Amino acid sequence: MADEIVLLDFWISVFGMRVRIALAEKGIKYENREEDLRNKSPLLLEMNPVHKKIPVLIHNGKPICESLIIVQYIDEVWNDKSPLLPTDPYQKAQARFWADYIDKTIYNLGSKLIWSKKENLEMPKKEFIECLKLLEGELADKSYFGGVNLGLVDIALVPFCSSFYAYETFANFSMEEECPKLNLWAKRCMEKESVSSSLPHQQKVYDFILQVRRQFGLE
Amino acid sequence: MADEIVLLDFWISVFGMRVRIALAEKGIKYENREEDLRNKSPLLLEMNPVHKKIPVLIHNGKPICESLIIVQYIDEVWNDKSPLLPTDPYQKAQARFWADYIDKTIYNLGSKLIWSKKENLEMPKKEFIECLKLLEGELADKSYFGGVNLGLVDIALVPFCSSFYAYETFANFSMEEECPKLNLWAKRCMEKESVSSSLPHQQKVYDFILQVRRQFGLE
Repeated sequence: MADEIVLLDFWISVFGMRVRIALAEKGIKYENREEDLRNKSPLLLEMNPVHKKIPVLIHNGKPICESLIIVQYIDEVWNDKSPLLPTDPYQKAQARFWADYIDKTIYNLGSKLIWSKKENLEMPKKEFIECLKLLEGELADKSYFGGVNLGLVDIALVPFCSSFYAYETFANFSMEEECPKLNLWAKRCMEKESVSSSLPHQQKVYDFILQVRRQFGLE
Repeated sequence: MADEIVLLDFWISVFGMRVRIALAEKGIKYENREEDLRNKSPLLLEMNPVHKKIPVLIHNGKPICESLIIVQYIDEVWNDKSPLLPTDPYQKAQARFWADYIDKTIYNLGSKLIWSKKENLEMPKKEFIECLKLLEGELADKSYFGGVNLGLVDIALVPFCSSFYAYETFANFSMEEECPKLNLWAKRCMEKESVSSSLPHQQKVYDFILQVRRQFGLE
């Protein structure tokens, strides 16, 4: 019997995008169910009663929650192609460290760039660029954080590229000027079908954020 | 050549305790270097330049940071005894989920219980007990979260038991009354040499916190 795979998702969620990319890298067919986050489905509440958040991967009826945990699960279950984590324990620990770093820094700082009042942007912008430069140093001259192929750290970070135009516009800076190597890495990732098919267009993300900013009186 | 293993640590750190327990479970000999967190050693700053935090496990000169990542590294490198994670990908994802849940809830709420003014304790106390009850439900009738043996979730949670007396005293509640099964689990864990030798005495933790609370005018 074929596996039944459902992803509870929301199009603009960077965490959802991570799971989409991992599934695409592995060539796994699945049903994507878009959630209305203001009116969460009974299935989402049943499958993730603790956090009540997307993404949830439901694999043959069993839920897996938290994006980085889901990506590792996908890599362990479908281990016959496109490895997403290194096999060496030290390299694996390093990949987990940087993926965790992205969750602890880039997500919160990126959110501040798009949801803050314009007069409160300088500090998060400075910190955000510092974090990106640190990641750029870790990337060094590799094609991907994972080396010659996409890995856990690439999958953790690349969804934020869908917000690059929004970050640049709201916080008034240029990714290309601040982090040229990381900017090239983003373009390289976007050439992969697994990434480009999983990320919404930057203009669509920007328009959505702009609309919500207007609703909240931030524009 | 024997492995050279150094742990940069601080006695009251629940994150340091996790690594101590994992190393003890595996029967690994190592050098524990106590850090002065107000005057961090050049070695700590060199080995964890990103977060500048303990614990850091230095294995043959190479640093591994972030306690849950270190515990997984230890489990993967020394995989010949006392497995700390299940082999089944779904069970592994579940263990990672609950360990992550502990980091996202228990640490912050527990910190609020011991570092808040007395008039601000009711809300974190209520939330803290709710989180513990949820964990108690997950433990159910198992001896350990890991089943018949100590696993990742036990190692993630049990260090907080060294602060149970402090939590109970500052926030005025009884673990035994609120979470009787979890209280028995804590006692069961403490019967293990790997745990009891890795945790400071509850009275010593309480005395230390009381002293710092007095310095900050909270008593």
